Amino acid sequence: MIDLVKNLATVNRRTKGSVIRELLKITNKPEIISFAGGLPSPETFPVDALAEIAHSAIKNHSRTTLQYGATEGLPELKAQIVKQLREHEGISTTPANILITTASQQALDIVGRTFIDPSDPILVELPSYIGGLQVFKSYGAKLMGVRTDDDGVLVEDLEEKLSKLRQEEEHYKFVYMVPDFQNPAGVTLTAERRNKIIELSERYDVLIIEDSPYREVRFEGEAPEMLYKLDSTHNVISLFTFSKTLAPGLRLGYILADERIIQRMAVLKQSLDLCTSALNQWLAAEFLKSGLARAHVEKVRVLYKTRKDAMLRALEQYMPEGVSWTKPQGGLFLWVRLPETMNADDMFYEAIKQNVAYVIGSAFHCDGGGQNTMRLNFSYPTEEQIDEGIKRLSDVIKANLRHRRRSRSAHLTAR
Amino acid sequence: MIDLVKNLATVNRRTKGSVIRELLKITNKPEIISFAGGLPSPETFPVDALAEIAHSAIKNHSRTTLQYGATEGLPELKAQIVKQLREHEGISTTPANILITTASQQALDIVGRTFIDPSDPILVELPSYIGGLQVFKSYGAKLMGVRTDDDGVLVEDLEEKLSKLRQEEEHYKFVYMVPDFQNPAGVTLTAERRNKIIELSERYDVLIIEDSPYREVRFEGEAPEMLYKLDSTHNVISLFTFSKTLAPGLRLGYILADERIIQRMAVLKQSLDLCTSALNQWLAAEFLKSGLARAHVEKVRVLYKTRKDAMLRALEQYMPEGVSWTKPQGGLFLWVRLPETMNADDMFYEAIKQNVAYVIGSAFHCDGGGQNTMRLNFSYPTEEQIDEGIKRLSDVIKANLRHRRRSRSAHLTAR
Repeated sequence: MIDLVKNLATVNRRTKGSVIRELLKITNKPEIISFAGGLPSPETFPVDALAEIAHSAIKNHSRTTLQYGATEGLPELKAQIVKQLREHEGISTTPANILITTASQQALDIVGRTFIDPSDPILVELPSYIGGLQVFKSYGAKLMGVRTDDDGVLVEDLEEKLSKLRQEEEHYKFVYMVPDFQNPAGVTLTAERRNKIIELSERYDVLIIEDSPYREVRFEGEAPEMLYKLDSTHNVISLFTFSKTLAPGLRLGYILADERIIQRMAVLKQSLDLCTSALNQWLAAEFLKSGLARAHVEKVRVLYKTRKDAMLRALEQYMPEGVSWTKPQGGLFLWVRLPETMNADDMFYEAIKQNVAYVIGSAFHCDGGGQNTMRLNFSYPTEEQIDEGIKRLSDVIKANLRHRRRSRSAHLTAR
Repeated sequence: MIDLVKNLATVNRRTKGSVIRELLKITNKPEIISFAGGLPSPETFPVDALAEIAHSAIKNHSRTTLQYGATEGLPELKAQIVKQLREHEGISTTPANILITTASQQALDIVGRTFIDPSDPILVELPSYIGGLQVFKSYGAKLMGVRTDDDGVLVEDLEEKLSKLRQEEEHYKFVYMVPDFQNPAGVTLTAERRNKIIELSERYDVLIIEDSPYREVRFEGEAPEMLYKLDSTHNVISLFTFSKTLAPGLRLGYILADERIIQRMAVLKQSLDLCTSALNQWLAAEFLKSGLARAHVEKVRVLYKTRKDAMLRALEQYMPEGVSWTKPQGGLFLWVRLPETMNADDMFYEAIKQNVAYVIGSAFHCDGGGQNTMRLNFSYPTEEQIDEGIKRLSDVIKANLRHRRRSRSAHLTAR
């Protein structure tokens, strides 16, 4: 065979497999209780309704559902999305502002490929969604982390970085953020900070990528308005997915943006996969039209809230002092911080030995930090598994703490 | 809004919309008989079988079909593909040699992104598939055309070009070809030339991309062996799609290649769309397993052969002297050559006025040539439409020829 490495494009030499993916392979054993995945619970899938819709979609509409479709997306689905955005978010938009994508990973790829040239600075959260980091890195972006706390991005830190980039005349392209129930940290950006970020976007003439996969999965509290709605300068591009509110198996998502941006992106998508499955788009459109979507999302909310509460209870009950965690108002994940001296990367293998898994927090940090953090998923495991799994994880942490204390005193004695 | 053009990545400034796509917009009026599309005939869709399979796939297997799947593809579908390649092509392979893609446009994108750095020379046929040209250009490839005749690529021309590139120490990456019922020309590469191309691939240490979307749609004649089968040095990468033998609406295809290449490509696909729809993969797997696939492909073959024959008959009957065309043994397209002095690009608008459409042949030429050629699709229009459409097209050509003769003699008289 040809010399593969010599023949690879530079961009592909840059594309690395996701750490999560490698770790998930280890955590696939049935005896392991895994908080490592990011899967929606299959119990929530609207099986009967979708089976009926699929049958009729093929039987009665095969000339649309089995054929090639427009690159921009099926008009029937775009119409439902426009309606939903108006009713749920108070966003008034048109089909021309929407590009249907093969789920939100493709949306991220399209965003990356539309804007990033090698060495362009891209601002991301610390921590940030690993699927986004992976795409931006694959296009050679220079990732710059912006600090966050339990209310999301620290606006002062974002402004400091933008100001520095402007002074240095760097060609910064966008700020990427997950404002609602962030992956991985589970935190939500406050209304006040959202307004400030929109101001910064205008002042620094920078695009904001608002990745919004979990927005509809809110358990409690008031939803601050979407960045897209707050923005009046067309600087916000929002990404949505049906993976959490319908089913990931359909691979459906969409991009909401200024019409000129959508047109550019549609030309690009044509060369990526021509169009997204018309059949799957039809299923989503009919599901939204049927009115079942609202009841379905409510079911998802109730189930995930129960599991989130179970996880918070278990953490409260079992975790030793010095360990803290976020309290998400929605979404699929929460974030655990261990004492600064602990290393969750190293501890991962001890946890696996005790049959419990998490994702190491460092994987979400573009600056190499976060070694004392971990992401826990609460949407997939059952309440019983959550209780038992958090107990196991707490035992691993306690043992690790004891071990550290012992080696420290041994070290002191040896002196 | 931000200055969009200033902010676009270089790669995206290079990505152009397809000419075909723009032309198709004009040809969408109901009074136009269009030979311009490339759509499979919806009459061939296995509607009842797929409707049943879809219902059961969701009802009884939702934990697989509605969930995220492995990036490499659904094991059930890969197993069926391995079986089919053995039975239909005598190719003995394993699931590890297969990557399921979101149809063959994604396969082309993955090939382009895996190998092409800006300015790398890529060898393509003259004419060549426009979807491939578009992808390779988007990655900044320097496209070099290899001449073809009614038996496919001219091996001597290919060798001359490879030899020159080697002398100049250019980093040539691959040769891209559609060996069976080529899009656009409808020609098939002979067995003899296939063997020679495999020799060249070894001698010049170059990958061959064998794009094979129509392979199964053979009406007549013996099938020469696939390049993939002839190759023993793992230098051939073959691309397949279910768009022609099942339905484009599923967006399903696959790449067959050396395991190390597949592994690289899977890492890349993860960042493109994580995985292809598990539901759609399941539908294809069950359809192949049911044994209905063979009867279905036979139905497609019979229908397309009837239409191809109708088009050949109409061309024979109506076309003026000096016009020639290819006689495909399969596929969806044939290729018309007008007298050298004629310009099919200019004539397109006259044809539209007469309510008949084709794709201009120049769109398939990376060297700016082919102005006297056109691609005609025979899979979508009915026999009646074919007869009437070719009659209209012949009238347009005759009028154009008369007009040319008149202006020439007027020109001579004026002297």
